[in-house]
Amino acid sequence: MGIEIERKFLVIDQGYRSDDSTLLRQGYLSTVKERTVRVRVAGEKAFLTIKGITEGSKRSEYEYEIPVTDAVEMLDELCEPPLIEKRRYRTVHEGMVWEIDEFFGDNEGLTLAEIELNEEGQAFERPAWLGEEVTEDRRYYNANLVSHPFSKW
Amino acid sequence: MGIEIERKFLVIDQGYRSDDSTLLRQGYLSTVKERTVRVRVAGEKAFLTIKGITEGSKRSEYEYEIPVTDAVEMLDELCEPPLIEKRRYRTVHEGMVWEIDEFFGDNEGLTLAEIELNEEGQAFERPAWLGEEVTEDRRYYNANLVSHPFSKW
Repeated sequence: MGIEIERKFLVIDQGYRSDDSTLLRQGYLSTVKERTVRVRVAGEKAFLTIKGITEGSKRSEYEYEIPVTDAVEMLDELCEPPLIEKRRYRTVHEGMVWEIDEFFGDNEGLTLAEIELNEEGQAFERPAWLGEEVTEDRRYYNANLVSHPFSKW
Repeated sequence: MGIEIERKFLVIDQGYRSDDSTLLRQGYLSTVKERTVRVRVAGEKAFLTIKGITEGSKRSEYEYEIPVTDAVEMLDELCEPPLIEKRRYRTVHEGMVWEIDEFFGDNEGLTLAEIELNEEGQAFERPAWLGEEVTEDRRYYNANLVSHPFSKW
């Protein structure tokens, strides 16, 4: 197991944009908050990811690489519609990695920035493009963006 | 992907018993019939298995081996309680493999025999211990034996 400690933010501009981005296509086999199961195709790779319930900014996580052909079939035939599609930018600020997701489709217009920490309460520098923190707001969970997409808020 | 074609039966006696048996401990991350996600520890190995909806005796299936330590944690901390525990016997009859599950716990008293076929309608010889067919009876799906165990029927 891993424990994922993550904080999530809105952005105020596109200052994070770079050439380092990947198209992500993902869907869910379970969106129940106690046990989400995600299928994701990320460029040339695919993953099955299981996460437990979020407590503050902490969450248990198990991730396994799977064949891309399996993942594509599961996304098209098994996952709860609609799928989530987003472009993920990756940038480093003061030694910390930020991942910024620009959503498409039913979540068009939403952009979320995430930072993964080694421990809760760990300090980090805020990039200039960073906006309001939304770590504790469940509407921004990707699993919830399937049933309640940003366009319907 | 694989397509699983399986028929399921009750038994009338224990004529299937042999020394070839394995203790299985399994739980579910999703019991939704369109997409079940099962965690199973089988002896020294563990698997994550995703199955689609059953149509007749056919079902899509994806199975991945995972570390036993991950599986044990997921069973104990993430899966929907209660877990399913059963002893699986394996026997060959007229060239076909039968798997017979004797359930414990909340499903004590239930025994189910399964045969996996290469195609729907494939002929096979019935062993003397075989009882009524229950392939189409949803109560006997393992995912349903979690929420509606045999002891409560």
